[in-house]
Amino acid sequence: MALVVQKYGGSSVADAESIKRVARRIIETKKAGNDVVVAVSAMGDTTDELLDLANEVSPLPPPRELDMLLTAGERISMALLAMAIADQGHSVRSFTGSQAGVITDESHGKAKIIDVTPGRILDAIAKGHIVIVAGFQGVSKETKEITTLGRGGSDTTAVALAAAMQASVCEIYTDVDGVFTADPRIVPKARKVDRITNEEMLELAASGSKVLHLRSVEYARRFNIPIHVRSSFSHKEGTFVTDQPAPEGESVEAPIIAGVAHDRSEAKITVVGVPDRTGMAATIFAAIAEAGINIDMIVQNVSATETGLTDISFTLPKTEGPAAMQALHNIQDEVGFASLQFDDQIGKLSLVGAGMRSNPGVSATFFKAIADVGVNVEMISTSEIRISVVTRDDRLDDAVLAVHSAFGLDADEAAVVYGGTGR
Amino acid sequence: MALVVQKYGGSSVADAESIKRVARRIIETKKAGNDVVVAVSAMGDTTDELLDLANEVSPLPPPRELDMLLTAGERISMALLAMAIADQGHSVRSFTGSQAGVITDESHGKAKIIDVTPGRILDAIAKGHIVIVAGFQGVSKETKEITTLGRGGSDTTAVALAAAMQASVCEIYTDVDGVFTADPRIVPKARKVDRITNEEMLELAASGSKVLHLRSVEYARRFNIPIHVRSSFSHKEGTFVTDQPAPEGESVEAPIIAGVAHDRSEAKITVVGVPDRTGMAATIFAAIAEAGINIDMIVQNVSATETGLTDISFTLPKTEGPAAMQALHNIQDEVGFASLQFDDQIGKLSLVGAGMRSNPGVSATFFKAIADVGVNVEMISTSEIRISVVTRDDRLDDAVLAVHSAFGLDADEAAVVYGGTGR
Repeated sequence: MALVVQKYGGSSVADAESIKRVARRIIETKKAGNDVVVAVSAMGDTTDELLDLANEVSPLPPPRELDMLLTAGERISMALLAMAIADQGHSVRSFTGSQAGVITDESHGKAKIIDVTPGRILDAIAKGHIVIVAGFQGVSKETKEITTLGRGGSDTTAVALAAAMQASVCEIYTDVDGVFTADPRIVPKARKVDRITNEEMLELAASGSKVLHLRSVEYARRFNIPIHVRSSFSHKEGTFVTDQPAPEGESVEAPIIAGVAHDRSEAKITVVGVPDRTGMAATIFAAIAEAGINIDMIVQNVSATETGLTDISFTLPKTEGPAAMQALHNIQDEVGFASLQFDDQIGKLSLVGAGMRSNPGVSATFFKAIADVGVNVEMISTSEIRISVVTRDDRLDDAVLAVHSAFGLDADEAAVVYGGTGR
Repeated sequence: MALVVQKYGGSSVADAESIKRVARRIIETKKAGNDVVVAVSAMGDTTDELLDLANEVSPLPPPRELDMLLTAGERISMALLAMAIADQGHSVRSFTGSQAGVITDESHGKAKIIDVTPGRILDAIAKGHIVIVAGFQGVSKETKEITTLGRGGSDTTAVALAAAMQASVCEIYTDVDGVFTADPRIVPKARKVDRITNEEMLELAASGSKVLHLRSVEYARRFNIPIHVRSSFSHKEGTFVTDQPAPEGESVEAPIIAGVAHDRSEAKITVVGVPDRTGMAATIFAAIAEAGINIDMIVQNVSATETGLTDISFTLPKTEGPAAMQALHNIQDEVGFASLQFDDQIGKLSLVGAGMRSNPGVSATFFKAIADVGVNVEMISTSEIRISVVTRDDRLDDAVLAVHSAFGLDADEAAVVYGGTGR
């Protein structure tokens, strides 16, 4: 008997009707002869509503108590989903993250899964039950405290369960038909991708694609778990994220480009007038790192010979802007730079494809497409299978459309978009 | 350092403002030099809202999953209360019933506490934390499943915690000033009782008084835990429920009557034309017991000599009426009774007082008061410290007012009522 792990996001279980629909879908999988374990997110806006409540009582709630609060969300959705399955005549058991053996480190709000001990799940499966597990949550190894995994955590729960129980596939149900060559809200002619490698999916997730959370892809790659991203609103096949070879009979020639990702969540800080001496950049980025801030792209201008001064720009999540500015102000005298500029009107475009390695013309086509629509490139960074550029926020969509078209990714028809996205 | 256990009901934590108010109150107790452990109910209508959601997905949800769902309610309220306390600068930890070591039997929806192992609470207290515990919930001893204690369960949680940790007092905060000589919504001149014995409180709770749940009083009596019932909306002293002698200087002469309770939750079933033979009543009540139904009062008429037939009436919770009628129909041929009558238009009035034992005139005064307002008594039952009668539902209030007045319980001023009641 094959074991299938499924994950349903918040938009798939937003109300009683949706929950019943998902229940039918789970039962279909069971009836097809599979054991089924389901990770589920909190219903629709539950998490936001709980956060609002928390903010009403405290502007800065203790992370331990915030995790205690937020985990009520999946407790509600998983119990309701179990009820809906039982109501259709199938035996079912729901388990919290703690009961399911999702063991994490001690970091409240952004815990990492360090082990999965699915004893209770395996017992329940052996008794013929369908199993529902609360996504997004776990219990810490040392102090046995309730933890949450952060944004996208339910994807990671599903993949971790699939890995621990050697599932044959981890199906991630969402509100789109799969992974697209671009966000269909920007590129109406974006095409669904049938297969994509883990490496490409990692680059897309790291570049702003929201369909799968980065950590879940890392987890799946490490444990070699094939992910099937598909819609809970249709029965179409979605996208297989896997490094395993395509089934016989399917084309084995991989496309050069997997897709175009965009990201509006970043800001740019420019440190103006940095003395061009050894160690200045190191001092600046040490201060940023000590403040616990992750930076993305970095650009340093060539020093103007007459002044001996240079500018250093880098991008970071908008939300960490204030903390970074403060950290830099604190070292202004030490470094001797002239001023700081904060710019949150930027966008990032990334082209991802494993085929780039062996196709030298990709960069030329990419930059020509952007130039042809008159968009200015402010920063550039590359990996072996990715090119990213920063543009003005209000020109980003034009650039995405142009690049998507230039690489022949446009489909004949517009894609279907169903609704919002869950966590 | 004294340990004080407090319980706050749903109406005391109905919204963010209420939660902040309760937080201040808890901090006052801590600042007065006490260790504090708080059991808290779900916010306001949360439990009803969760039940509505459950009913939307299933008319008859599995009890295990219903408990999983409902326990989300206290998880939310306890985390928010902990946040509010932390926001005011005090260290605090919240614990679910399971984490707090509230061990129950396996009966979902009406579990009984069989042990309390408060290791994590004691650790937290030793570190100086205020402790918040989810009321109403526990974990089953054998199967480690999440359970709930049924209506009024948070009172029982508080008393059980107080007993396990030998607290000096268990304070039950509610939306009235304490235990009253009658329900102030019926008797505006009801008086707050300063002290009441466990035995009297048990009879009142069993007779329809909702201020304390019956099981919590039983628990407190067994472990000799003094309960202080008081309002979370004022700082007045409430009612001490205790068998311990009054402090020196206070009057030690107990009043004859503790109070008048009423109950509109019962119905009456009459089995008409039962052959007056040995064992007929036993057959009838065995059938009722086998259906798992608790009955309250029983009256059997004297058999009419000419017919050899008698009628048997009994009261039971209205909600169990249909099941009882079905059980009786099933034995109609065996017993040979003529017909069944179901009457849910009844009310029950109970007079409770330990002083009845030594005051023979109580019954006479009681029945005269009821007769004087023209209310017909349909059934009577008594214990050593209680007289109960059944009347027409629509005459119950008149009878309650008359009895309250006849025993000189009326206060000079009307009592203050603050709001609804929590669980």
